[in-house]
Amino acid sequence: MWKPDRRSKKPLYQQIADDMERRILYGEYPPGSFLPSERKLAEQIEVNRSTVIQAYEELRAKGIVESSSGSGTRVSKRLLGVTPSLTPNWRAYARGGTFAPNLPMIRRIREVLRERGSIIDFASGELSPDLYPNQAIQQLLREAPFEAPLGYDDPQGFLPLRETLVSFLDKQLNIRTTESSILITSGSQQSLYLITQCLLAPGDAVAIEDPSYSYSLPMFQSAGLRLFRIPVHENGIDPEEIESLFRQHRIRMIFLNPNYQNPTGSILAASKRPRLLKLAAELGIPIVEDDPFSLTSFDNRPPANLKSIDAHGSVLYVGSLSKIAASGLRVGWLIAPQTVVKRLADARQQMDFGLSVVPQWLANEFLRSGLFDRHIRFLRDALSRKQLHLMTALNRMLADKFSCIPAQGGLNSWLKLNQPVDDSKLLEESLKRGVVFMPGTVFGSEPGYVRFSFARPADHELESGIQKFAQALHALND
Amino acid sequence: MWKPDRRSKKPLYQQIADDMERRILYGEYPPGSFLPSERKLAEQIEVNRSTVIQAYEELRAKGIVESSSGSGTRVSKRLLGVTPSLTPNWRAYARGGTFAPNLPMIRRIREVLRERGSIIDFASGELSPDLYPNQAIQQLLREAPFEAPLGYDDPQGFLPLRETLVSFLDKQLNIRTTESSILITSGSQQSLYLITQCLLAPGDAVAIEDPSYSYSLPMFQSAGLRLFRIPVHENGIDPEEIESLFRQHRIRMIFLNPNYQNPTGSILAASKRPRLLKLAAELGIPIVEDDPFSLTSFDNRPPANLKSIDAHGSVLYVGSLSKIAASGLRVGWLIAPQTVVKRLADARQQMDFGLSVVPQWLANEFLRSGLFDRHIRFLRDALSRKQLHLMTALNRMLADKFSCIPAQGGLNSWLKLNQPVDDSKLLEESLKRGVVFMPGTVFGSEPGYVRFSFARPADHELESGIQKFAQALHALND
Ligand SMILES: Cc1ncc(COP(=O)(O)O)c(C=O)c1O
Ligand SMILES: Cc1ncc(COP(=O)(O)O)c(C=O)c1O
Repeated sequence: MWKPDRRSKKPLYQQIADDMERRILYGEYPPGSFLPSERKLAEQIEVNRSTVIQAYEELRAKGIVESSSGSGTRVSKRLLGVTPSLTPNWRAYARGGTFAPNLPMIRRIREVLRERGSIIDFASGELSPDLYPNQAIQQLLREAPFEAPLGYDDPQGFLPLRETLVSFLDKQLNIRTTESSILITSGSQQSLYLITQCLLAPGDAVAIEDPSYSYSLPMFQSAGLRLFRIPVHENGIDPEEIESLFRQHRIRMIFLNPNYQNPTGSILAASKRPRLLKLAAELGIPIVEDDPFSLTSFDNRPPANLKSIDAHGSVLYVGSLSKIAASGLRVGWLIAPQTVVKRLADARQQMDFGLSVVPQWLANEFLRSGLFDRHIRFLRDALSRKQLHLMTALNRMLADKFSCIPAQGGLNSWLKLNQPVDDSKLLEESLKRGVVFMPGTVFGSEPGYVRFSFARPADHELESGIQKFAQALHALND
Repeated sequence: MWKPDRRSKKPLYQQIADDMERRILYGEYPPGSFLPSERKLAEQIEVNRSTVIQAYEELRAKGIVESSSGSGTRVSKRLLGVTPSLTPNWRAYARGGTFAPNLPMIRRIREVLRERGSIIDFASGELSPDLYPNQAIQQLLREAPFEAPLGYDDPQGFLPLRETLVSFLDKQLNIRTTESSILITSGSQQSLYLITQCLLAPGDAVAIEDPSYSYSLPMFQSAGLRLFRIPVHENGIDPEEIESLFRQHRIRMIFLNPNYQNPTGSILAASKRPRLLKLAAELGIPIVEDDPFSLTSFDNRPPANLKSIDAHGSVLYVGSLSKIAASGLRVGWLIAPQTVVKRLADARQQMDFGLSVVPQWLANEFLRSGLFDRHIRFLRDALSRKQLHLMTALNRMLADKFSCIPAQGGLNSWLKLNQPVDDSKLLEESLKRGVVFMPGTVFGSEPGYVRFSFARPADHELESGIQKFAQALHALND
């Protein structure tokens, strides 16, 4: 983000006017389009609003912009030609297409995170930067010989990585598969996008958990799916509900996150798993097992994955490096029967001609070296310690105001507040105090729940973050 | 691809049966799904068909597969349970969604390329591996310090890369832009996918060139667009045609590849460009300038891009490293007004949560180091030399049988055959002789044209490839 130079002799407003003129001439703001509002720009570049007003005044005097009262400042259409040119109505074009926008609450939180780097962040379901395998990655980049071909990759993904995954998944999770059953994706998000776009049609009914990470993804709406929700209890969903949903709505697919579920942290009881698989097979509906967290299991004993005990072949397994290594690598995998993998690989070619070979090569080196094993041990310890910190702080500062079952893996703690609260008021009070979290309603739960990601804040922020949150809660209840 | 071990004491058929049993048990072929046909598997793993028949017989005897006459061999549904389980009908699921399949001719060519590594390849519009900056990339991986953050990236892409692109594009192509107007994509393909999916709606009319690379992309069909075609002459399209297409069909966007067009190699005359831009601005329709080749200009003097002379802001500019460095990096860029960039970045988040930071970091190091300049000089010389080889061979072996205007940049030569030919027969005759090319019809041209990519074959293959092609042509005309 460009900012004016406070040590320059040129006045601030003039610097802003010059920078904006350049952006207009270079097409960032074409004729007829709106400049950022004065308030917003002032916030972004950290100057007084009056300075921006003065800068816009300067541009107006030069005939570069014009302002219509109420609707803001827009770039003059007469700027560059003798006759007023039409030029594309970009705002209308940008409203095209079928991508649903994010939930307003999520947009609000993202905006805050972008603009206020110093806020204590319990909202992002992401590891804190010191939990990434930074050293391992630097070492591999420096030392591992890069021998991957640099042409368009195999549509299913880099073969050596798929081969490594076959033994990796067998060793780590008892999942038996073949290299032809694996599609390398740029993370679980792309796996889910491919599944919803290619195997389902608008109007199809699908089952998701309630609450559910999937609920927070506009992707499901964009695909025009009808979502039916199955309550998540302390030990996961009740498989019998699948059958009644099928009878009533002909659901065509089930999306589950059985281990350390996002957002609740719950585990689908091992005893329920065979029944669930049997039902799905009898009804002929695939289960998408979204499984980013299994390897974070604090005691290194994740419950056996659906995929590993699926004798009927009903499970589409979705894995990713995002939560066990680093989300910026954008490497994930989807395991499915040949027909499905081929179909999804083909569709993906149309979207992006496949993945970059560089992160795939790097992921392969990482997984097959001893570096991964060392890293994952470190990560498990760190996460379990962070959760403990969080729970201690919560118990000390909020005592009888909440209940929470500590998770045994994953990145998230799920709190039920014992008093009724207004989610968005609680969020705003917290933002004021410099802390942010995810209100449960984002995941489709009723009000009064919150998700704290304990993986994201630095250790020293856990305590002060909860203190701020407690203050926000008190302020509301007064 | 797994192959049986010919030195093993276990008979071949038994090895095949065992491998297939494992694939079935591991879910590559779930209950009820079909195994590959005996002929196809025999070809793939390079054994006699009778050996595969024997292997399938073995699986049948064990009750693992069953064959219904005519429809092939399928995995037994009774395999794993007492009651026959339904399990998902994967073939039906794989028919879902809206992704159009590739043109049959393209599918045929891709299949041949996958299965016959030794064929001389004039078909792939890709650089030959020795033209990639292999050494530069190895050097950067080894020596450049990796300092990029490993979390989820900025939705618009890695900021340092966008900043580098601002000066890179200015210096190399006189394109002035700002870092906020750039969206980093995983190549031109993703840029085009985002544009067709997010800025247009099914039923919208768009103009493309005739012939055109875009015509070969099922992506346009998948988006439900109505394509109207503007003939490409020796010096590009006639801008006036835009106006009549707009009056008749209300076209909403124009897709052009003005420099070294794929497939014709032609250049849109500099004299036509201002008129084209003026028309587009007056009609209010955006021009998508797909520009992968400008920097390959053999004499390093590419015609000024539409984007660089676009005063009205009508151009969406699409660039990529694929043809000037390496396609496997999957790094491209799209330049557009803020409103558009934000919209596309948002939609992309739903598809894949953004690009891996690793290739973006690498691309940044490459573009800002002197390594790129050295590489692109080398590449220009190599491409120009390769085209000369190709033309010499063509002139010697096909003399008066074709006409072709040598390209001044890009990867492709476009030949008009002087006698009428049946495209698919010519292709099959060529395949028999070990050479493959792209028939012009793939790009929507009338029959009798072929595209030779001279960038792909090794130097020593250019001559023998044309010899084989000449033989194929003679065989047809006899
Ligand atoms: C349950 C679940 N699935 C999928 C994802 C997406 O992860 P990625 O696309 O980074 O692999 C997340 C991220 O928070 C998640 O929590
Ligand atoms: C004109 C044109 N546009 C776009 C592309 C796609 O390139 P990429 O997605 O690799 O950048 C190609 C590739 O052949 C092309 O020729």
